[in-house]
Amino acid sequence: MSDLRGGIDLGGTKIQTAVIDAEGAVKGEARRPTPTEGGPSDVAAAMAEAMVEAAKAAGVESGDLQGIGVGSPGDVDEKAGTVSTARNLPGWEGSFALAEALRKALGTEVRIGNDVQVATEAEFHLGAGKGFDSLIGVFWGTGVGGGLILGGKPWLGRGAAGEIGHMVIKRGGAKCPCGRRGCMEAYAGRAAMEAEARRRQEDGEKTDLFKLMEKHDKPRLTSSVWGRAVDHGDKLAIDLIDRAIEALGTGIASAINLLDPEAIIIGGGLGIRFGERYMDQLLEEMRKHVFFEEMPTVKMAELGDLGGAVGASLLVSR
Amino acid sequence: MSDLRGGIDLGGTKIQTAVIDAEGAVKGEARRPTPTEGGPSDVAAAMAEAMVEAAKAAGVESGDLQGIGVGSPGDVDEKAGTVSTARNLPGWEGSFALAEALRKALGTEVRIGNDVQVATEAEFHLGAGKGFDSLIGVFWGTGVGGGLILGGKPWLGRGAAGEIGHMVIKRGGAKCPCGRRGCMEAYAGRAAMEAEARRRQEDGEKTDLFKLMEKHDKPRLTSSVWGRAVDHGDKLAIDLIDRAIEALGTGIASAINLLDPEAIIIGGGLGIRFGERYMDQLLEEMRKHVFFEEMPTVKMAELGDLGGAVGASLLVSR
Repeated sequence: MSDLRGGIDLGGTKIQTAVIDAEGAVKGEARRPTPTEGGPSDVAAAMAEAMVEAAKAAGVESGDLQGIGVGSPGDVDEKAGTVSTARNLPGWEGSFALAEALRKALGTEVRIGNDVQVATEAEFHLGAGKGFDSLIGVFWGTGVGGGLILGGKPWLGRGAAGEIGHMVIKRGGAKCPCGRRGCMEAYAGRAAMEAEARRRQEDGEKTDLFKLMEKHDKPRLTSSVWGRAVDHGDKLAIDLIDRAIEALGTGIASAINLLDPEAIIIGGGLGIRFGERYMDQLLEEMRKHVFFEEMPTVKMAELGDLGGAVGASLLVSR
Repeated sequence: MSDLRGGIDLGGTKIQTAVIDAEGAVKGEARRPTPTEGGPSDVAAAMAEAMVEAAKAAGVESGDLQGIGVGSPGDVDEKAGTVSTARNLPGWEGSFALAEALRKALGTEVRIGNDVQVATEAEFHLGAGKGFDSLIGVFWGTGVGGGLILGGKPWLGRGAAGEIGHMVIKRGGAKCPCGRRGCMEAYAGRAAMEAEARRRQEDGEKTDLFKLMEKHDKPRLTSSVWGRAVDHGDKLAIDLIDRAIEALGTGIASAINLLDPEAIIIGGGLGIRFGERYMDQLLEEMRKHVFFEEMPTVKMAELGDLGGAVGASLLVSR
């Protein structure tokens, strides 16, 4: 057996896999779009394919890996290796034994953790969060996920802490994909933003968002589609990104007022694409609501697109 | 020297003192209204008077106490024994050496801590929070304060965590006494509620709130004035309490979504007066926004009006 570990980041838009050595260096990687139809077993099959490809790129078989960690959305039961109610994935309302399905397909042990929590731990151990005692990871993508490090350790609460995207920023406000009203994610999550863009287009607002989506053969408004639209000066796209930044700034400020952490780390598909560019605007929105004179440090995630997969691989040695 | 300790809870409305023995039993207590005019030294003088009275009730001199702990609002520097920018207290914008002033007046050592944090610790060690590993104390009074216990220990962040009252529940909403917009406290803090009642009365709405205040010779709309008005069916008072409960439910739910704690403990002047009576309504508001299927336990603080003073006395043995 090699000293290599596998990591799989299961996102709402894409599946990112990586093979990592004992020092945390990436030896191979691959990605697939996340299936938009079918059910959990179709998603598991795409994950296995992408993992096999990353192993090949690293010059090993998947069965030679010490183990594979998975960062998954939805309700993760680490001990049982199951994932349930992953609303951003197709047909995944119930519970699915993901660890078992992947173990059979890949021939090595598989551990599952919460996607955002493992990405936060990766930034804390290897990336932008090194050296801080407390931080909040904010992953701005299909949804808005949060991970907490408090006193140098992950804070999981009763098991599901970090739902920063469902902090309320506007009581009675926009409907969130979760069914509730006024959540930060209702304004800033990519899925909610796409639904809002569609509604506004139907109401007669002009936008190239959906044309760009078709032109680049994407099944949905991915971060890259949003990026292109904003680059082209698409007014609706710019409005919705501004609205998302307002929501993010407000919700992150609320979290800061409660926890008074040393740092905020911004990641996720949209976070990586827009975080740097909109950092001043984000800080301005945060300052409107942060109760303390001294703001925490706000940094971009450093592990980029691979952060989730690298963090997931850390589950193997936990 | 006796085995007795003193505790002083410095609130926006009243000063509560207590003398406590080694088992945590209250041996004497006293209270004074918090001065509404003057400055920090006037407040310190009223605190000293109330402490002397509690000591007398316990059959000792204040100088015989092992020490005195103070739970204070504003920015507390525990080491320096100073309190600054206590906005709900008269003329307390700058920094004041409260520990030193009280030590001179009372003849024993004085330690200062954050009012809400010491009340939370009191509930955790001696009251409604016993047996939980994580909890949020929510103190609904002049403002809305929060205290955190995570993993069995106080969580202070960079020193000032727990500002639950300044979590945003409505972006662009009501102006808060802190100057920001849409904070939970802008709707639920007694000070903000009084300002709103006054505005609505000036706009022609009928209410007995201010008549009751004068009749009972109160300098402001105290919890007891609100209680009487609601008992009499005063529509404006009932509306504003309903509005406060909505805000509290929303903000507490946001905190739960971030931290996933085992318990929520409700205290404070308005909390003690209205918490039990409005518990079902509060839980209903919380459920609208809590992301998890299983709600944390929600309990009323058990140490009542004395919780803050008892918690403050625990600072002596820290």
